[in-house]
Amino acid sequence: MRIYDIIKKKRDGFALSKEEIEFFIKGYVDGSIHDYQASALCMAIFFQGMNERETADLTLAMAHSGDTVDLSRFGDLTVDKHSTGGVGDKTTLIVAPIVSALGCVMAKMSGRGLGHTGGTIDKLESIEGFNTALSPDEFFSQVEKNGVAVVGQTGNLTPADKKLYALRDVTATVDNLSLIASSIMSKKLAAGSHTIVLDVKCGSGAFMKTPEDAKELAEAMVKIGNNCGRNTAAVITNMDRPLGNNIGNSLEVIEAIDVLKNNGPEDLKEVCLTLSSEIVSLSKNISVDEARKLTEEVLVSGKAFEKFKEWISSQGGNAKWIENTDLFPKAEHTYEIKAENDGYISKMDAEKIGIASVILGAGRETKEDTIDMSAGIVLNKKTGDKVEKGDILATLYSCNEKSFNSSKEKFLSALDFSEKPVSEKTLVWGIIK
Amino acid sequence: MRIYDIIKKKRDGFALSKEEIEFFIKGYVDGSIHDYQASALCMAIFFQGMNERETADLTLAMAHSGDTVDLSRFGDLTVDKHSTGGVGDKTTLIVAPIVSALGCVMAKMSGRGLGHTGGTIDKLESIEGFNTALSPDEFFSQVEKNGVAVVGQTGNLTPADKKLYALRDVTATVDNLSLIASSIMSKKLAAGSHTIVLDVKCGSGAFMKTPEDAKELAEAMVKIGNNCGRNTAAVITNMDRPLGNNIGNSLEVIEAIDVLKNNGPEDLKEVCLTLSSEIVSLSKNISVDEARKLTEEVLVSGKAFEKFKEWISSQGGNAKWIENTDLFPKAEHTYEIKAENDGYISKMDAEKIGIASVILGAGRETKEDTIDMSAGIVLNKKTGDKVEKGDILATLYSCNEKSFNSSKEKFLSALDFSEKPVSEKTLVWGIIK
Repeated sequence: MRIYDIIKKKRDGFALSKEEIEFFIKGYVDGSIHDYQASALCMAIFFQGMNERETADLTLAMAHSGDTVDLSRFGDLTVDKHSTGGVGDKTTLIVAPIVSALGCVMAKMSGRGLGHTGGTIDKLESIEGFNTALSPDEFFSQVEKNGVAVVGQTGNLTPADKKLYALRDVTATVDNLSLIASSIMSKKLAAGSHTIVLDVKCGSGAFMKTPEDAKELAEAMVKIGNNCGRNTAAVITNMDRPLGNNIGNSLEVIEAIDVLKNNGPEDLKEVCLTLSSEIVSLSKNISVDEARKLTEEVLVSGKAFEKFKEWISSQGGNAKWIENTDLFPKAEHTYEIKAENDGYISKMDAEKIGIASVILGAGRETKEDTIDMSAGIVLNKKTGDKVEKGDILATLYSCNEKSFNSSKEKFLSALDFSEKPVSEKTLVWGIIK
Repeated sequence: MRIYDIIKKKRDGFALSKEEIEFFIKGYVDGSIHDYQASALCMAIFFQGMNERETADLTLAMAHSGDTVDLSRFGDLTVDKHSTGGVGDKTTLIVAPIVSALGCVMAKMSGRGLGHTGGTIDKLESIEGFNTALSPDEFFSQVEKNGVAVVGQTGNLTPADKKLYALRDVTATVDNLSLIASSIMSKKLAAGSHTIVLDVKCGSGAFMKTPEDAKELAEAMVKIGNNCGRNTAAVITNMDRPLGNNIGNSLEVIEAIDVLKNNGPEDLKEVCLTLSSEIVSLSKNISVDEARKLTEEVLVSGKAFEKFKEWISSQGGNAKWIENTDLFPKAEHTYEIKAENDGYISKMDAEKIGIASVILGAGRETKEDTIDMSAGIVLNKKTGDKVEKGDILATLYSCNEKSFNSSKEKFLSALDFSEKPVSEKTLVWGIIK
């Protein structure tokens, strides 16, 4: 088998066999296939696409290119969720305790934030003492004890995806549905859970800008999951504005705790209940309506909040902070952005708001940057809200007072106003399974 | 400017600017642009193509990526010819003395043979003493003296094309008209002649298999040449069978001498006169009919043959061999391939016949192989000819008797026979200018 023939075959519009795809992935990881051949192949895939079978084969080949997590000891109730990335997205902090309070097992690896989106691991580390670097034994024993553990990525998971993604990123070959879907799903397959629910964000703050594109990606990923023997569903949710009101690490943990106390913003709560219901329905093989009732019950009864405290403290986090969020360190400086005119907010560009929070210190522009855990933005008004001149639109938090000007400028550039009332956009665009 | 944006722009179907193309070529040669980015761009070009202006810009950027030959001291009468490569193609040996006998100046760099096609430099080196490695000064003084000199490629000509072609060759990105045309033409532009006539071979022994494909390539190259300020024309000629009867280095020189003595096979003579007429017409700005008369005159009068002797001996070649071709060393062994049945030759696969000659030692499979100068094939019958059982189809020449079996097998696999008479295919498909 020669990589030249594989490139030419795809270039000329033919489907690659499972053996050809495995030959490519194996050779690319071991270095016998060169970057320049892999990038030519990715560009050919960009133009010619891959069918459902090829996409599943590529995903499996990448999933098996390195270590895989064996969760079989926990039976069929292992669950995972994945978000394609958004601004103010703290759903894992809420969904994990809800579904584990209902007997699902969430043994999850999560990432750090980069660019305009935050990462669950960073958010969890804003809680004093929380340890995201458990050894495999500690990780499994946490899961055994609590039914939930969330750690940073360890081991040599999906090296093929890492290498290929880095290459695609510099050769303009990211934007292909099969390549995007297989990249995400290879990591989910390697992480070992039986049920996978995907939160495909859609809108100004997301990778997928339109519901149509998000639906296509969701369908591609769900097909891969199901073709590879996992229970898979995808929820397409709105990212035309940030989710919830708080953006920034400890600010988001505090808001998640609000929701777990059955308070907090409705949009965040609704997305979390939708994701949780899908997870519980798929993993316990019950109807979504039934699952929805159960998830609402554990939220209202406080069982989810209890599970959250149990989880956080067993991973070393200070439970007192969870009981009393006033204990989280406050940002040294705050700044209120006020409305300059009367009107209605007609649009929020979530990506720009994410960048405004990075300017304050809440995120990283490069992997080496450090994070100001208390920095961020609390929104007082969101799309559709009526505002009067002088109303507080948002409050900025930072230990670096100098960042306020540029953050404010970025924030205001994200907003459009209208004189007439505007209707809010759909929150959950659809569910694919 | 970023190469990423250039790749993405081409990927998305936009034309690249002159500056972007120059940025790519410059960066690729100096190593700041990586192979994996260049191959992704070539694959994007494969799918999206390049327009006429982009193709000319790419050609010029590659032509100027290294040394260029300055022939301005010889005025406007400098001429070059280029063949896209065929079997039995010894036209340069004939065209060069014809056109220089008419006052054109041919200061030409030529290549060595590889694979199933031979190279002019190898053929010339079958003449005792002929020196193809002149210094630039010697080269120019030869041209000054005789109006003709042919040497091997020297200096750092078109390094961008060399590097890019080697990359395309292993990434399945060779087959794009703009890339093929710019690769050939960049070398011709760098070689400095004012008039360029291309011999685009078409058929079983050529890169372009159909007249339509050959015409497309010819048009693309002529447009580049004219857009870059050179007089350019292309002649599309038949390579469905070898040109002339002799294949192999000294065998081809001997056949060229036959033509220069106004003997030799008609097809070879006709292609040479067509090419020569185009060169003379373009460079002297006279009609093709007038030019044709002149070229026939110098051939019939023996002036072309005299010019040939002058040229060969001034580059160190033994003129006695030219006077008396019996002086060329003979192959130790010969083998006659005889017809097994009566019939007509309906098809000859020129590429297979070329390979049969390489098996005898007349060519190289890899750059490191050495050549048996006297090895080769002399055809007694060609497409359209009637043969009777026992007729000699061809004679094989080699110093390696053991090669005959496998060469004969390859040769016979190249031939198709018919019981009915067949008409010969067109020799000159057309002229593009």
